[in-house]
Amino acid sequence: MLPKKDVILIKHLVLNKSDEAHKILANLHPADIVQILNEIKNGNKKLFFRMMSSSKAAEVLEEFDPFDRLHIMEEMTETETVRILENMSVDEITDLFQEMPTAQAESLLQKLPQEDYEELKALLKMAEDTAGGLMTTDYVYILSDVTVSQAIDDVRQFGQKAETIYYLYVVDDKKHLQGVLSLRELISAPRDKRIHEIMHRKIVSVHVDQDQEGVAKIISRYSLLAVPVVNEENRLLGIVTVDDAMEVMEAEDTEDIHKMAGITPEEDVVLTTTIWGASKKRILWLVICLLGDMLAGKVIHGYSHVLESVVAVAFFIPVLMATGGNIGTQSLALSVRGMATEELSRKNILQFIIGETLAGLQLGIICGSIVSVIAYIWQNNAQLSIAVGLSMSISLMLASLMGVLVPLIFHIFNIDPAVASGPFITTLVDITTLIIYFTFSLYFIDIISLDIVGVVSFGLKGVLV
Amino acid sequence: MLPKKDVILIKHLVLNKSDEAHKILANLHPADIVQILNEIKNGNKKLFFRMMSSSKAAEVLEEFDPFDRLHIMEEMTETETVRILENMSVDEITDLFQEMPTAQAESLLQKLPQEDYEELKALLKMAEDTAGGLMTTDYVYILSDVTVSQAIDDVRQFGQKAETIYYLYVVDDKKHLQGVLSLRELISAPRDKRIHEIMHRKIVSVHVDQDQEGVAKIISRYSLLAVPVVNEENRLLGIVTVDDAMEVMEAEDTEDIHKMAGITPEEDVVLTTTIWGASKKRILWLVICLLGDMLAGKVIHGYSHVLESVVAVAFFIPVLMATGGNIGTQSLALSVRGMATEELSRKNILQFIIGETLAGLQLGIICGSIVSVIAYIWQNNAQLSIAVGLSMSISLMLASLMGVLVPLIFHIFNIDPAVASGPFITTLVDITTLIIYFTFSLYFIDIISLDIVGVVSFGLKGVLV
Repeated sequence: MLPKKDVILIKHLVLNKSDEAHKILANLHPADIVQILNEIKNGNKKLFFRMMSSSKAAEVLEEFDPFDRLHIMEEMTETETVRILENMSVDEITDLFQEMPTAQAESLLQKLPQEDYEELKALLKMAEDTAGGLMTTDYVYILSDVTVSQAIDDVRQFGQKAETIYYLYVVDDKKHLQGVLSLRELISAPRDKRIHEIMHRKIVSVHVDQDQEGVAKIISRYSLLAVPVVNEENRLLGIVTVDDAMEVMEAEDTEDIHKMAGITPEEDVVLTTTIWGASKKRILWLVICLLGDMLAGKVIHGYSHVLESVVAVAFFIPVLMATGGNIGTQSLALSVRGMATEELSRKNILQFIIGETLAGLQLGIICGSIVSVIAYIWQNNAQLSIAVGLSMSISLMLASLMGVLVPLIFHIFNIDPAVASGPFITTLVDITTLIIYFTFSLYFIDIISLDIVGVVSFGLKGVLV
Repeated sequence: MLPKKDVILIKHLVLNKSDEAHKILANLHPADIVQILNEIKNGNKKLFFRMMSSSKAAEVLEEFDPFDRLHIMEEMTETETVRILENMSVDEITDLFQEMPTAQAESLLQKLPQEDYEELKALLKMAEDTAGGLMTTDYVYILSDVTVSQAIDDVRQFGQKAETIYYLYVVDDKKHLQGVLSLRELISAPRDKRIHEIMHRKIVSVHVDQDQEGVAKIISRYSLLAVPVVNEENRLLGIVTVDDAMEVMEAEDTEDIHKMAGITPEEDVVLTTTIWGASKKRILWLVICLLGDMLAGKVIHGYSHVLESVVAVAFFIPVLMATGGNIGTQSLALSVRGMATEELSRKNILQFIIGETLAGLQLGIICGSIVSVIAYIWQNNAQLSIAVGLSMSISLMLASLMGVLVPLIFHIFNIDPAVASGPFITTLVDITTLIIYFTFSLYFIDIISLDIVGVVSFGLKGVLV
């Protein structure tokens, strides 16, 4: 991060078109220029870009997400835009064009050099969230029968525009992927060896349709700096680099956190600039759970005679519902995150389910005892105190089990486990908890003299009617 | 991922000590061997390690987390262990020793080569979750006055054990960091130039005490493959590589998700193997919120005469509490994650707070209308219907505001915003919602004829007494 005073100084120099600004911007890292631009009003951002070389301007623009890029480019003339685009890597141009109105993208595309045009046309056809949508075609490939010294010359010559030159992909004349070699191995190898003598033939690659989260996981799993993207025939189409993988990981984690809180992931950043945009992504789970919690209300309705006799029963509804919801959310977080990081596997899943359920019971007994003592002291009613404590114990155990089990079941049926959001689990837990609580209340407080089976069936009938 | 049948075949070959197994293991990627080992019983894992070269065994062991490493090493003799340790990178050995009983670590340390001993001693003193704890000392440095061709020779010679040779750190004779050069630039430079003529003097580096999350963010921000670690005098101590940064990011995101669900982050993996271990990390927030929700019960107590008159008021307690909790959790997730990814900054924070509060009001009006209609149809009571609908609207707006504001306030007071967990927000929301609901119920259902000010003060008195 740039210190505050540097930001102010550079802002001042650029906005006053000082000559010094050229030199300062040329020496700054793109990420630091972005930091300054974030504090500049729209309309003035173009002044910065006019003071940068086109390659620097391209690097800076690449740091913004596609939507912000679009906003910045609106300030520029088409000539300025094309000059910058010519210096951007093709994967970044693709991301940008995907956000643009088709007509505008088409018009800009026409003005780019012929070779970029063909590449971009192909990339634009890929789905955004796949390896194909993420990859760049700026990589270095070499033929398998050249010598090491020829290959080093090739890298020096063709590596200028490549995103990485640290992995060299070895292909045949039809661009089928044959092997891979790191630059490190290349420069350590005897100069007269042929590439096919020293290359690795076992290659980690991804299919062009592989989803982007899977691509990021492979890069992380094998600690790669880049992974090659191939089609069905094993033809090399592009590469995905580790910095893009890190961005994907961050975006996917954000999506998981939002989903777990019952927020529908956004496809389009534009929406959040309006109030309805902010509401829209939350409304679905809110309404589903609202209807679910009306059922919880129906449980109370079914037992309203209990409340009418002993109004104190109502005082413990909040603590039972809330604690159950909390423990359910905790188990959910452990379960969903464990699956995302692959810490949970077929091997340890049963142990995990049993462990969390027993932990739920243990926590239930602890919390149940606490609440039971409070209930007794507060209301001086032993029956109520027992009913509250027992309900707490059992409902916490069930809540923990549901929090663990529901996302697993979703996973088995190939539904994203993060969809089993906190709100969803909480609603399930609310209904269960109230049924348990009122059943026990009815039994212990002894309003109607029935055996336990009769009480449960009576309670359920109350809910269903 | 290896296909299931390959896993079974390789397992079979190794467990039967087949000669073929040597060759197969030599050709497998360490991450794939880990996949197989995860399905092998403890006690048999050593058979795999005996069939691997010591460098391969070291690579495989590095893939496990320090705790699992310890378990595997328990199966081996001390000679086997030392042989593998000699091939492990120093940052990984450090992680391992930090998990070991001091006596065992000390004994192994004695048996390692003298040069490693000194390095390890120094690394072991670093705090685990800082740049110093994360860094490796296996990197390549060059002196600033050598020529490009000398430097290339140095890299070929000394780069064998280095974690990365793609960044070359330029130092003076006292190891003060002077500049940096990528291998890419080095091999493209004229052979007779001196390093100081072509190196970059502006260097992104981190201090040895910087926390590991900050280190990962810098690597991500500047799209680096590695970052140098220096002390106060700018002496180069080590480097942190991008693959370690990715692991840190994943671990930190897990920690954030757990904290948001009210789970205390674990310092020590050992704990989760016992039930109390699983319970311990959840108990803190459960009990805090349990006590908080007793206050919510106290609100109902304060208004119990309302319930005694119109028991139907109780039927809507679950839906109001749950929906408020849900919207609060949603806002919390947006707020905490926005701060973690730095999408939220001083510049847009006010806009975010206002936007989310208005979204909360909008959602409140929608959900309030729905619940109001349901209440009217179900209970045929216009006053109750209005009280429920109005309470929902206002409490959802407040819940959204609290979800956004509380983590921000924590952040201002330098408390980790993820500590403002879902359970905590939900409890705040529960209490607020019930006060609003009973106040409106009292007013609209017209049990006691008081003006609105009187009603609120009466309600508050009820809670406090």
